[in-house]
Amino acid sequence: MKLKVVSKILDANERMARENERIFREAGVRVINLMSSPGAGKTSLLERTIRDLKGSVRIGVIEGDITGSDDAARIDSLGVPVVQINTGGACHLDANMINDVLKELPLGELDLLFIENVGNLVCPAEFKIGEDVKAMILSLTEGHDKPLKYPLMFQESAALLINKIDLRPHLDVDLDKIRRDALSLNPSIKIFEVSCRTGQGIDRWIAWLRTSIS
Amino acid sequence: MKLKVVSKILDANERMARENERIFREAGVRVINLMSSPGAGKTSLLERTIRDLKGSVRIGVIEGDITGSDDAARIDSLGVPVVQINTGGACHLDANMINDVLKELPLGELDLLFIENVGNLVCPAEFKIGEDVKAMILSLTEGHDKPLKYPLMFQESAALLINKIDLRPHLDVDLDKIRRDALSLNPSIKIFEVSCRTGQGIDRWIAWLRTSIS
Repeated sequence: MKLKVVSKILDANERMARENERIFREAGVRVINLMSSPGAGKTSLLERTIRDLKGSVRIGVIEGDITGSDDAARIDSLGVPVVQINTGGACHLDANMINDVLKELPLGELDLLFIENVGNLVCPAEFKIGEDVKAMILSLTEGHDKPLKYPLMFQESAALLINKIDLRPHLDVDLDKIRRDALSLNPSIKIFEVSCRTGQGIDRWIAWLRTSIS
Repeated sequence: MKLKVVSKILDANERMARENERIFREAGVRVINLMSSPGAGKTSLLERTIRDLKGSVRIGVIEGDITGSDDAARIDSLGVPVVQINTGGACHLDANMINDVLKELPLGELDLLFIENVGNLVCPAEFKIGEDVKAMILSLTEGHDKPLKYPLMFQESAALLINKIDLRPHLDVDLDKIRRDALSLNPSIKIFEVSCRTGQGIDRWIAWLRTSIS
């Protein structure tokens, strides 16, 4: 019974995700669903990315949080269109929540829409929201056992950004194991070692983004 | 309809949580539900705690993970009884999952049972599993905005361990804001600054534990 309900919820979500896809395609905007654990650096990555692409790529952002609008304020201060979704307790965004706010964004004037999901390494990977691509961030501080313990997100993501790489000298973390296990789960995943604080490695991510959206 | 289903699931969980409580009380074992984001240091804290309390407090552990048994192997190597639960995708432990494995633990021979929840700062806080106390870990690397963005877990927890405090010189994190916001959400929360790597601050946590279980 419980399983049947869950499956119905996923089916309904799938239908709405396809509707969102259609809307994005017609508007000519590419959409990236950005996921990670809490505090891995999603908003910091967006800040870096917006600064680097501004002037050449028209970016919009949907911010997903359980509560509050701190992240939307950070993005807004960079002068790009942003909408905040508060899930009010739900641990992931779903396609309905996205559909509800699309009218608040000038989709026809955007090249690229980032959707920052709720900080959670589990559930967001289960719900399509109409994105072209899923990208994930793992903070190096989370440790090298994460790919094998949270496999779905690594399997679903086209890109893995390993953030806070500047802290590597201070951590007992086996970076090669992260790479190895992520690739074993998803041989085509593109891996970037970055520091959103120092800017290290961001250029490779930006180059990949430019290729992906062109 | 969806809300009604969710509420029924929570009701059923509540009943089973009360049954677990009864079993723990009769066995004379105190139970701590340990929660955090992925990679904040739950298993490392358990390793430290078991080493410090071994000989004076009889400890058992239930490990919750989506998949795999790495954490149970780490605990097993310390010579304490441990059971691994694999949720197979679910992002939190529930009271049924706990009830199912209780027969595999020598409850009557334990003083203290740690239940390490799935790494997730959201959903585990919603599901009682029969614990006496909820305790949470926040890795300092997750940043100072976490209490206000993930309030429920801070509200539900009796203890907050701020881990990886040894990394403080390398981070732009406002530790005072974490303390202030956690206390504003939960004025009685007990806060410990610790490093599971260096051992810093662990003595205060151990002292609090001894008081809590006596």
